Amino acid sequence: MIDSRKPVFLVIGAGAGIGGNAAMRFAAGGYHAVMARRSDEAGLARMVEEIEAAGGSASGTLLNAAEDGAIEELVERTERDIGPIHAALYNLGAQIGNRALDQTPHRIFELGWRLGTYGVFRLAHALFPAMVERAKTGPHGTLLVTSATAAMRGNAGQHSHAAAMGGRRMLCQTLNAEFAPKGVHVAHVVVDGAVDAPDTLGKLLGDKFEAFKANKGADGVIDPAMLADTYWHLAHQPRNCWTHEIDVRPWTDVAWWNDNPNPEINAAGKGFAGPKD
Amino acid sequence: MIDSRKPVFLVIGAGAGIGGNAAMRFAAGGYHAVMARRSDEAGLARMVEEIEAAGGSASGTLLNAAEDGAIEELVERTERDIGPIHAALYNLGAQIGNRALDQTPHRIFELGWRLGTYGVFRLAHALFPAMVERAKTGPHGTLLVTSATAAMRGNAGQHSHAAAMGGRRMLCQTLNAEFAPKGVHVAHVVVDGAVDAPDTLGKLLGDKFEAFKANKGADGVIDPAMLADTYWHLAHQPRNCWTHEIDVRPWTDVAWWNDNPNPEINAAGKGFAGPKD
Amino acid sequence: MIDSRKPVFLVIGAGAGIGGNAAMRFAAGGYHAVMARRSDEAGLARMVEEIEAAGGSASGTLLNAAEDGAIEELVERTERDIGPIHAALYNLGAQIGNRALDQTPHRIFELGWRLGTYGVFRLAHALFPAMVERAKTGPHGTLLVTSATAAMRGNAGQHSHAAAMGGRRMLCQTLNAEFAPKGVHVAHVVVDGAVDAPDTLGKLLGDKFEAFKANKGADGVIDPAMLADTYWHLAHQPRNCWTHEIDVRPWTDVAWWNDNPNPEINAAGKGFAGPKD
Amino acid sequence: MIDSRKPVFLVIGAGAGIGGNAAMRFAAGGYHAVMARRSDEAGLARMVEEIEAAGGSASGTLLNAAEDGAIEELVERTERDIGPIHAALYNLGAQIGNRALDQTPHRIFELGWRLGTYGVFRLAHALFPAMVERAKTGPHGTLLVTSATAAMRGNAGQHSHAAAMGGRRMLCQTLNAEFAPKGVHVAHVVVDGAVDAPDTLGKLLGDKFEAFKANKGADGVIDPAMLADTYWHLAHQPRNCWTHEIDVRPWTDVAWWNDNPNPEINAAGKGFAGPKD
Repeated sequence: MIDSRKPVFLVIGAGAGIGGNAAMRFAAGGYHAVMARRSDEAGLARMVEEIEAAGGSASGTLLNAAEDGAIEELVERTERDIGPIHAALYNLGAQIGNRALDQTPHRIFELGWRLGTYGVFRLAHALFPAMVERAKTGPHGTLLVTSATAAMRGNAGQHSHAAAMGGRRMLCQTLNAEFAPKGVHVAHVVVDGAVDAPDTLGKLLGDKFEAFKANKGADGVIDPAMLADTYWHLAHQPRNCWTHEIDVRPWTDVAWWNDNPNPEINAAGKGFAGPKD
Repeated sequence: MIDSRKPVFLVIGAGAGIGGNAAMRFAAGGYHAVMARRSDEAGLARMVEEIEAAGGSASGTLLNAAEDGAIEELVERTERDIGPIHAALYNLGAQIGNRALDQTPHRIFELGWRLGTYGVFRLAHALFPAMVERAKTGPHGTLLVTSATAAMRGNAGQHSHAAAMGGRRMLCQTLNAEFAPKGVHVAHVVVDGAVDAPDTLGKLLGDKFEAFKANKGADGVIDPAMLADTYWHLAHQPRNCWTHEIDVRPWTDVAWWNDNPNPEINAAGKGFAGPKD
Repeated sequence: MIDSRKPVFLVIGAGAGIGGNAAMRFAAGGYHAVMARRSDEAGLARMVEEIEAAGGSASGTLLNAAEDGAIEELVERTERDIGPIHAALYNLGAQIGNRALDQTPHRIFELGWRLGTYGVFRLAHALFPAMVERAKTGPHGTLLVTSATAAMRGNAGQHSHAAAMGGRRMLCQTLNAEFAPKGVHVAHVVVDGAVDAPDTLGKLLGDKFEAFKANKGADGVIDPAMLADTYWHLAHQPRNCWTHEIDVRPWTDVAWWNDNPNPEINAAGKGFAGPKD
Repeated sequence: MIDSRKPVFLVIGAGAGIGGNAAMRFAAGGYHAVMARRSDEAGLARMVEEIEAAGGSASGTLLNAAEDGAIEELVERTERDIGPIHAALYNLGAQIGNRALDQTPHRIFELGWRLGTYGVFRLAHALFPAMVERAKTGPHGTLLVTSATAAMRGNAGQHSHAAAMGGRRMLCQTLNAEFAPKGVHVAHVVVDGAVDAPDTLGKLLGDKFEAFKANKGADGVIDPAMLADTYWHLAHQPRNCWTHEIDVRPWTDVAWWNDNPNPEINAAGKGFAGPKD
């Protein structure tokens, strides 16, 4: 059911993890959530029902974001049939696990770019003109972009993912430079830890998922329902104090810029500048 | 008036800008705010009154943070006389405006370090053992650290300030690495824009302050009362999704990593990699 | 003329700027330089002649690096017909000048990726297996990658270029993580200033090029013949002290991380943390 | 023996690792090397003899760089008695091994700052005016600064070291911003690996040093005699293409921005952005 008096929150990549939970949070806050994902129409319908059961408003649609025109058509259709998109979340990843270079085929590398970088460009291209227009007299627009550790540094086996996410980050900074002063808030969220997301990490790990989480200890994995509050906060910062980049990780996780904190290794090696007397 | 059943929020650097407004926000949220600043006892009293008038609980104290033992004594006294400090904000800056190297005396450079870097170390030294102890069975502790553009990059005239803030940032990362898994959340807030702070920027600019703000345009200067919501959000993220670093700036401000966006200059110079055919 | 007893230095993007001058420098140092560029067969022939006149060995070939298979074919042909590629330089840029998002068509954005990111992936895919094999018993291999300011931060109008270069940088870090311990040195060179390159910047600026350089003052533009010494140095660092990333710029240029150093603007704004007493 | 017709290369922190080897390299290249270190007069004399035996020119002096006025006096004395300092190397570290916060006394933290940050400030204060003056009509001046992984990110146990090195890095950027256009080249060298330095790492590890190096494998530890070539290269880049920051590490070392490259850990955790379909 669509309540067209509500502002629209569009989620591209609305699985049962960050995307779906962000939709739920924004619906609870008064938005109509439009959830798009590649597959699992039943899962999508369940999420719509869950949001409506909680008194919110939502709708879902299947979307192959890698296909030319698909994102553009979704934006156009949403604005026309539902209402103005006041906030959007680009939540597609491009993680394929670690693969050595010779196990990373060219078409995989290209697909990484299509989902990881190009899709953000296409969404901005389709969405920002209307947001800019609306910001002249009304509220500002927001584009939240879920990003990953690989946007900050490449690592072994991350050829496709890191290239895609590095492009994503620099693109977000470029979008911010052009569009912030025109009233569009772009926020790049560096998710630097494992997420309790059954549709992605869960599928990747399969039956090892529960053991993985247990091994992380209490609150050792990001709960996407709680992370959704940070997304909500970002989308509602007044324009005098916008955040462009933020990192999140569980308390027990080592931050991406830290290597093995083993004292013996470190004291003897990294960080040792040279002769000092 | 002290309500000792409330958790304590300690602010070091509680002027009428970020520090005072954070105190107000946390008091509104149920904390007893302990506000410390170097001078202006009357201003301090007014802030306490304002918080109490709004139904909150607060107390104030003068503090010379550059003095050995002062921060330690304040922490000890607060924990003993008022209650456990559940969250603290280190909000002392070390900005002295731009000064060429030969206009930056050695004692100024050292004072910059004392306020900018050493004070954070001393606060953590005095405060974290109790926070760690309490986190074993109760809620986690939080240290918010207001930081500046100069923590991210040095710039002409910022010898003292950038060295102090660069030290601050690396120290915060070190504190995070040791204490996050022990239940203390350290968040480094990069304030990358001018703040509407009469006690600091206002004094620095004097009678040009109003013209400066007007020139920035609508919402062109950070409103510390609104920024306080971001501080509040950070301090209350559940431990499965803590933020360590976040930036904030007004929508119309150029981010620190962007130089002059003049198209002609840029097209011709920066970013031009070299022969491409 | 090909001297097949020499190690080969392959340059992809061998115009009259960084690429051609690097070829000249490596030829002077005893390599056979293979220079590939998209067009201007006459210019290519002149560079070969110039190198041979100086007593060096070189050959040239036209290459459309955006075409599938072209880089792979060049690597295969070079190794088969000339000799083992001991060092390579990827010198293709993707700069198109500053363009607003709505002036950046989708095909341009994709082409930026093809030249800026994907080409590096394809070169590594084609070249590294042989380098790894040779490093087991012989000298290590080297991949030098010319990069740009836009690899470090996005800026207004750089949608295509920054996304491409950001992907390039993260890819280089990923390649380094996998291949450094296998004997391939990947070095990412951040060229953070204008280069005296007639084939690229010269063409972009047209008849304003000379005035642009004059306006930069003495040594205000990078001389690619001199920069070539830094490329040479990087390629010959012993494997106990490899550099992965280095920046270069003229002495009079403002570094990318510095904005306008105007004292008044800075003192009043950026870097001002907040209330400090 | 002092050859006053030679340009002077001043090394602060001239032990048997990076400092001493840089002195040897610059002496071989035609400089008179002035080597200062805190202790071990005999070791200093041996290095002078070694340089002279190789046909170079050098002198040594003991220096407590943490003492007020000591660096200033050394600069003044060198310029007066020996000759103009054309290049200097600040090579003092502040590494004390990993120590938890409660094992890091306040005086150690302050000493870290004195050696790690303040000494660079004091050297620049004392040295740059003469360098700027000379650069107006003659060759540019150079300040090389050996730095460490801890300048890039804090890590557990590095409270003192990271704060000191973070301050150092931001100070170097500030010095660069003011002095590059005045003809002083400041280069910040991030040594991101263990150095075969008997006076520092050797003393720290004691009788485990040889086993540590053996365990690192062939070329697994930086050879300071070879790294000295990179220092030499930096100091002699022409001013149209100066490097401000460069990293170095052994080929087998994991870069500071990479954590454990264990595929299983990574695939499951870090870098995993969230739901993607």
